[in-house]
Amino acid sequence: MFVPPERAGYDRTPVMYDPRGRILQILYARRAVSQGTPSCGILFKDGALVAGKRKMTALLMPNRKVFQIDEYIVATFAGYSSDGIFLVELARDQAATLRFVYGSEKPDVYLIARYVSSIMHQATLYAGLRPLGVSIIIAGSDLSGPKLYFNDPGGSTVAWRAGIIGRNAPAGEEFLMSIFKEKKQNSISFEDAIKYAIAAISISSGSPPSPEEIEVGYVMVDKPAVITTADASNIKTLYEEGINLFNEWKAKYKKHGESEEEEESEEEEEGE
Amino acid sequence: MFVPPERAGYDRTPVMYDPRGRILQILYARRAVSQGTPSCGILFKDGALVAGKRKMTALLMPNRKVFQIDEYIVATFAGYSSDGIFLVELARDQAATLRFVYGSEKPDVYLIARYVSSIMHQATLYAGLRPLGVSIIIAGSDLSGPKLYFNDPGGSTVAWRAGIIGRNAPAGEEFLMSIFKEKKQNSISFEDAIKYAIAAISISSGSPPSPEEIEVGYVMVDKPAVITTADASNIKTLYEEGINLFNEWKAKYKKHGESEEEEESEEEEEGE
Amino acid sequence: MFVPPERAGYDRTPVMYDPRGRILQILYARRAVSQGTPSCGILFKDGALVAGKRKMTALLMPNRKVFQIDEYIVATFAGYSSDGIFLVELARDQAATLRFVYGSEKPDVYLIARYVSSIMHQATLYAGLRPLGVSIIIAGSDLSGPKLYFNDPGGSTVAWRAGIIGRNAPAGEEFLMSIFKEKKQNSISFEDAIKYAIAAISISSGSPPSPEEIEVGYVMVDKPAVITTADASNIKTLYEEGINLFNEWKAKYKKHGESEEEEESEEEEEGE
Amino acid sequence: MFVPPERAGYDRTPVMYDPRGRILQILYARRAVSQGTPSCGILFKDGALVAGKRKMTALLMPNRKVFQIDEYIVATFAGYSSDGIFLVELARDQAATLRFVYGSEKPDVYLIARYVSSIMHQATLYAGLRPLGVSIIIAGSDLSGPKLYFNDPGGSTVAWRAGIIGRNAPAGEEFLMSIFKEKKQNSISFEDAIKYAIAAISISSGSPPSPEEIEVGYVMVDKPAVITTADASNIKTLYEEGINLFNEWKAKYKKHGESEEEEESEEEEEGE
Amino acid sequence: MFVPPERAGYDRTPVMYDPRGRILQILYARRAVSQGTPSCGILFKDGALVAGKRKMTALLMPNRKVFQIDEYIVATFAGYSSDGIFLVELARDQAATLRFVYGSEKPDVYLIARYVSSIMHQATLYAGLRPLGVSIIIAGSDLSGPKLYFNDPGGSTVAWRAGIIGRNAPAGEEFLMSIFKEKKQNSISFEDAIKYAIAAISISSGSPPSPEEIEVGYVMVDKPAVITTADASNIKTLYEEGINLFNEWKAKYKKHGESEEEEESEEEEEGE
Amino acid sequence: MFVPPERAGYDRTPVMYDPRGRILQILYARRAVSQGTPSCGILFKDGALVAGKRKMTALLMPNRKVFQIDEYIVATFAGYSSDGIFLVELARDQAATLRFVYGSEKPDVYLIARYVSSIMHQATLYAGLRPLGVSIIIAGSDLSGPKLYFNDPGGSTVAWRAGIIGRNAPAGEEFLMSIFKEKKQNSISFEDAIKYAIAAISISSGSPPSPEEIEVGYVMVDKPAVITTADASNIKTLYEEGINLFNEWKAKYKKHGESEEEEESEEEEEGE
Amino acid sequence: MFVPPERAGYDRTPVMYDPRGRILQILYARRAVSQGTPSCGILFKDGALVAGKRKMTALLMPNRKVFQIDEYIVATFAGYSSDGIFLVELARDQAATLRFVYGSEKPDVYLIARYVSSIMHQATLYAGLRPLGVSIIIAGSDLSGPKLYFNDPGGSTVAWRAGIIGRNAPAGEEFLMSIFKEKKQNSISFEDAIKYAIAAISISSGSPPSPEEIEVGYVMVDKPAVITTADASNIKTLYEEGINLFNEWKAKYKKHGESEEEEESEEEEEGE
Repeated sequence: MFVPPERAGYDRTPVMYDPRGRILQILYARRAVSQGTPSCGILFKDGALVAGKRKMTALLMPNRKVFQIDEYIVATFAGYSSDGIFLVELARDQAATLRFVYGSEKPDVYLIARYVSSIMHQATLYAGLRPLGVSIIIAGSDLSGPKLYFNDPGGSTVAWRAGIIGRNAPAGEEFLMSIFKEKKQNSISFEDAIKYAIAAISISSGSPPSPEEIEVGYVMVDKPAVITTADASNIKTLYEEGINLFNEWKAKYKKHGESEEEEESEEEEEGE
Repeated sequence: MFVPPERAGYDRTPVMYDPRGRILQILYARRAVSQGTPSCGILFKDGALVAGKRKMTALLMPNRKVFQIDEYIVATFAGYSSDGIFLVELARDQAATLRFVYGSEKPDVYLIARYVSSIMHQATLYAGLRPLGVSIIIAGSDLSGPKLYFNDPGGSTVAWRAGIIGRNAPAGEEFLMSIFKEKKQNSISFEDAIKYAIAAISISSGSPPSPEEIEVGYVMVDKPAVITTADASNIKTLYEEGINLFNEWKAKYKKHGESEEEEESEEEEEGE
Repeated sequence: MFVPPERAGYDRTPVMYDPRGRILQILYARRAVSQGTPSCGILFKDGALVAGKRKMTALLMPNRKVFQIDEYIVATFAGYSSDGIFLVELARDQAATLRFVYGSEKPDVYLIARYVSSIMHQATLYAGLRPLGVSIIIAGSDLSGPKLYFNDPGGSTVAWRAGIIGRNAPAGEEFLMSIFKEKKQNSISFEDAIKYAIAAISISSGSPPSPEEIEVGYVMVDKPAVITTADASNIKTLYEEGINLFNEWKAKYKKHGESEEEEESEEEEEGE
Repeated sequence: MFVPPERAGYDRTPVMYDPRGRILQILYARRAVSQGTPSCGILFKDGALVAGKRKMTALLMPNRKVFQIDEYIVATFAGYSSDGIFLVELARDQAATLRFVYGSEKPDVYLIARYVSSIMHQATLYAGLRPLGVSIIIAGSDLSGPKLYFNDPGGSTVAWRAGIIGRNAPAGEEFLMSIFKEKKQNSISFEDAIKYAIAAISISSGSPPSPEEIEVGYVMVDKPAVITTADASNIKTLYEEGINLFNEWKAKYKKHGESEEEEESEEEEEGE
Repeated sequence: MFVPPERAGYDRTPVMYDPRGRILQILYARRAVSQGTPSCGILFKDGALVAGKRKMTALLMPNRKVFQIDEYIVATFAGYSSDGIFLVELARDQAATLRFVYGSEKPDVYLIARYVSSIMHQATLYAGLRPLGVSIIIAGSDLSGPKLYFNDPGGSTVAWRAGIIGRNAPAGEEFLMSIFKEKKQNSISFEDAIKYAIAAISISSGSPPSPEEIEVGYVMVDKPAVITTADASNIKTLYEEGINLFNEWKAKYKKHGESEEEEESEEEEEGE
Repeated sequence: MFVPPERAGYDRTPVMYDPRGRILQILYARRAVSQGTPSCGILFKDGALVAGKRKMTALLMPNRKVFQIDEYIVATFAGYSSDGIFLVELARDQAATLRFVYGSEKPDVYLIARYVSSIMHQATLYAGLRPLGVSIIIAGSDLSGPKLYFNDPGGSTVAWRAGIIGRNAPAGEEFLMSIFKEKKQNSISFEDAIKYAIAAISISSGSPPSPEEIEVGYVMVDKPAVITTADASNIKTLYEEGINLFNEWKAKYKKHGESEEEEESEEEEEGE
Repeated sequence: MFVPPERAGYDRTPVMYDPRGRILQILYARRAVSQGTPSCGILFKDGALVAGKRKMTALLMPNRKVFQIDEYIVATFAGYSSDGIFLVELARDQAATLRFVYGSEKPDVYLIARYVSSIMHQATLYAGLRPLGVSIIIAGSDLSGPKLYFNDPGGSTVAWRAGIIGRNAPAGEEFLMSIFKEKKQNSISFEDAIKYAIAAISISSGSPPSPEEIEVGYVMVDKPAVITTADASNIKTLYEEGINLFNEWKAKYKKHGESEEEEESEEEEEGE
């Protein structure tokens, strides 16, 4: 890999801008995210879900890809798993704190997502730390309905309708975009959301994972979160329909290479 | 991009001057600001407003560009959004503190803007931190009338009549300058201000954003702040008039490229 | 050894990503692990075991390779022994704390493994520290049955069915994989597990260690942990059967060189 | 700009001397000062004044160049405005403290100037800080009469009869020198001082600023400080006379370029 | 001495791995140890001893090479003497603490050795410290019998049967190995141990030291430690026998050069 | 200026020796001293004095070169004036403390000089600080008679009979040496001392300063310190005699260039 | 001076070993010692002495080379005088503390020497400090008789019979060695010791110092320490005899150059 000379030295800590105003260590941390297995999140009419592909080998116990944060909140992440677990535990602590402080049965999902992102932001403000190499998607339901948030290594929290992170995410994102351009949130059912998630994950993975490899966490309004795999009885047929969507999409776009212009587009997203 | 050899090394931390007396990390942080979507602020006869273009895609929930700081104060920013939210939250805390300490119903806008800029200034004084990569515009109304302040990554607070920040800001600034050279503050109505803001944002954006893409926050003397989008009933026709201004301006200046002399001009502004 | 120029400088601290999103100091710490004598762990029907080859010379007292953490928990490690002992002592402290706090007779094995990995993770978050150069395998039995966890220098905890670490670990792993692909946990008896462990360690060692060189620690459900060597009366014949497995495997794969693609595969495992 | 090789590296922090005994970061901070708009201070028979040119554009609210420190003390600065405001606020705090501690109605001007310079000095003593990029002129009246002090980025406080700082200061200084060589302090009236200040600022600016651009702060013995612009009724005609002085001076010295030998002369001033 | 380019930079602090997973500063600290005068330790049937060659010149008072730690514990070291004394004093403090805390008459030797090694380990974990440039051998007797421990600059504690450190240690080690391969601990008497120690030290020294140059510390079970020189009445004849062993060995191996492969072998020992 | 390559890098902080055992940052700090205006100190029969040349221009208020520390103690310095004032204030604090603690009317001069030098020494012991760029001469009278001390940037305190510091000090020193070689302290009267001081300062300055430019501080046994300029009635004629001495000396040594071998001689003085 | 490339970089802080296991900053600090004026220490039958050559010029008050630490303890040092005084004051504090804590009239000399060396050792353990550039010789008498200790910049304390430090110390050491090889401590009288000290100092100085230049401090058993110069009545004739010894020695060794192999020999002494 070629490193252009003008970059040398600007990418040593998160407390240094390069001459173009970029914080390169944050861009690099995003590269760690883009090497994780795909994870996605979708907000639908009466709930929100996260789903991801988990790593399975004969020597591993089933590896978790979706984590319970609170009775009504779940999360998934892509990137360095030890950074991810670190954030999941912080989110759980914050949920417990909110329950205690506000006496609420349903902690506010934004407050939890924002707490986690503020920790991620701190890690970009001080020399001697590194940005966390993980993005996290938090789905939940609180007093004002279903919620879906995405936290980036740079420390921002964005409210999503849908999205996908990890290896080859732009491919899955293109599929989701084609769906959501057409549809309002209210017109997306739980069943649709599952199918779209499975299709998007399959597209980013390049080939459909087995039902056991896909872990899904969802929260319906007023019902506690459920974490399961795609071979659960209520998801099995949806899995198959998702795979069909994958096949249709693949048929349409025979050749769909990973775009290598990432960096430029990341920069675009930076400013707000 | 070419980095002249005499600069090498002077741009590593905010606690280092280069041989010309510049703090390069602050200049670079300003480059982060100049890559954000345009935001502007205008002081008018009986109030002040901020407005900005928000990012919208089918996959995102509507993205905030204007933030409420207090009942009578709003703000917008351009640059790294995680740094911006960090400052917005500090401003909110300070507003709450001022209400508590002074028992005032309307916190002093300058005190809030200055508090935020002093935090931004601290980040330029210590090794191991980085200047915040964001500029923030704060509009409000307090006991002495409407106010508009601009905070820069270097840590200064400037009282504005009007201004614009973010990508291609000099283009919108040229438009605002042409207006304000001619007019006193008293002669600018709320309706004028909205139109000018929409025109300036469109000019910096290169093309007119849709009404939904423009978020506006305004404070009229003695009335609580309002945050809305340009498709609100009382703004819709003003939006159209703003777009007309944009088209007239564009017609006058057929070719209006982004000036690349920024750095020199930044330097000019540095000394006071 | 050739160091590609683009890597120079990115591998100085654990708080720096390289342009590909890798934390090179963690990769290097894993290299320290891959130079230790082989250690393995296996989860079986009604228990879990760890085993390792210990260094023996005429001038050393028998060197420990397996450590007692709690009445029902044992551990082994590969890598820098002083880092390993440091973690073993932390694990013992945590086990004692859990007994005290929860009044439980059997501390939760995951909580201990996770506590240790959170310490290992901290060492990857701050400049001025180094990742610990050791991986640790923890086997135990708690209220929900037998458990086997693996902690990596990066700070992650993974639940294993079986695995091997240390010098030439991929060779032993290939053997274990061939077994576990075929078998469910329930179908693996204590006796099987011992045999597989001895065969895997022999394969990674290149030749069968003597029974005295192999230290084994195992926990059967509801029985306190036992730490012994392979010449113990109940293991001696299993040792011979393990050596037979080794010989069969060796016969099958006459030439089985150490794969030098490690780094790439490590990267693969990084993202989740 | 050419950087002589022997300087490389000695100019990274304020806690490093170069082989000639210079602290280069302090010299560079002075360069930031020498890029600000001109500010001057003059001590006269029964008072002291500061004056400066403020930046005015149609888009800015009138920008302050003179700041009230206490009822009897004013200040102006040149250089980084955020550093300047930081010092102005410290000076105000110290004035309030002195009033409180000594119960004096008129705080000692030297104690305030010295307090500010001791903060500026601290910033040259520790690695991890930067010298403040600003010089400040403090004029006031206390129990022992009118006072005028100048603080430099190096942390020294000097009692002035008159002086000018900022862009092209040596040109204005030459003018002031020509006046003060001839006159005792007692022979300089308030009216003279205003005229000299306006002439000096005009000389350093290269052309006369408009009356609105010149902000003046003055303290007459036993009268509270006044801050105003040069179009105030009692200053307007003095402004015109100052411009006349400027024109005479310009006529005498047709060609008066900015001297580029600054650095050498700075060095001269260093030792005491 | 040639420094291979790929090593440059990885050997600056103990908190940095090189690309092969080595901590070079620890290797270098071991080089400091290998330049000290030889010290050895031997565990025998009913006790343990340490012995070393002390430096003697007409201008020095007899230099200590063996140190009393507790009534039943002695120690010797090789390497930087100021680091060694620092550790000896820590060991003494810990022994006193253990006596106080446990009320035991005989502190546990392992706890003392481990306490010292944990301090040595800390010095390899933080930037801003250096590994201690000393190895220490601790011999003692506690409630479970005689003990012999060796602590390395890396921070590990190893239980020894016998060993030698310092200049040309591998030569003496080869001799000890030839003895201990043949003999069980129980078959080694105090008299044997003294002879072997004197022979090993002579072999590593290249020539036999005088009896006054050899300091010996030994602990017999249930008897307080004795520190003496080899010209003590009960050791004198053993000294002669040790010198005879040295001569026999030298006769067998006429040419016995210092092996220069140290580094590789150190690496071997690293992993566990 | 040529920087010999072997020096590069050893001169970055005061906590680094170069291969010749020198602390280069201290040498550089001495260069800052050797660029100040000359200051001298002389111990005479019944008192001690300091004197120095002060900078005077039409635009400055008379600049202090001699400072009162206590009723019976005065000081002068050469080098960075902000460092000098910092030390003068520390000396004043210490004098006040000694008066308070010991209830003495005349604080011990050595204790004050040593306190100041211990602060200067601290600044040579820690990374992140810089040696103070100033030398200070303290003259006073205490219970055991008149005293004269000199403090160097390295942190030492030396008792002087006489000496001179600042620009071209060796020239003035040569003159003083020629006097003091011949005379005992008891044979030097106040009048002699003043003359010698004025001559020495004139010699180092290259030409005689005006009487107003020379500030003198002296303490006669049992009389409070006096600070004045050389045009005071009791000094005026002594000034003239001093100038005569200067002229005689100049006549003797027509050509007396500044020696450029300073560095070597500094080194000589280093060791003690 | 040539700096071999492999050394570059290893000599920046005391917390870095070079590849040969040396701490170069300590070696460099010893070079500072070897540039001081010679100091020596001798233990004799019923006491101990230190002596050194002090710097005298017409402009200095007699410079101290020997320092009283306690009623029964004296010290001298060679190297950076400000580091030396710093240690002398620490030694005095420790002596006072010991008197207070133990109520002893004669503090233990070793405890004081060791306290000082532990401070010197700390300065070699932490980045951000520098080894102290001074060696100190402490002579005293306590309850167990006369004592003589030498502390090195590396932080070790060595009990001496006799020794000399400072410029050209090996020459004086060779002389002392020739004496002490022949004589037991008991056979050396106070008179002998003085003579040897004067001869050794003269040999290292290259020529005999004047009696006033030699300062001597001695402690006879049960008598308080005496500090005097060599022109004291009881030393004057011994001085002459010492000079005779110097002349004899010089006659024997006509040509006796300073050995330039220092570094190697220092290394030899390092390991213990």
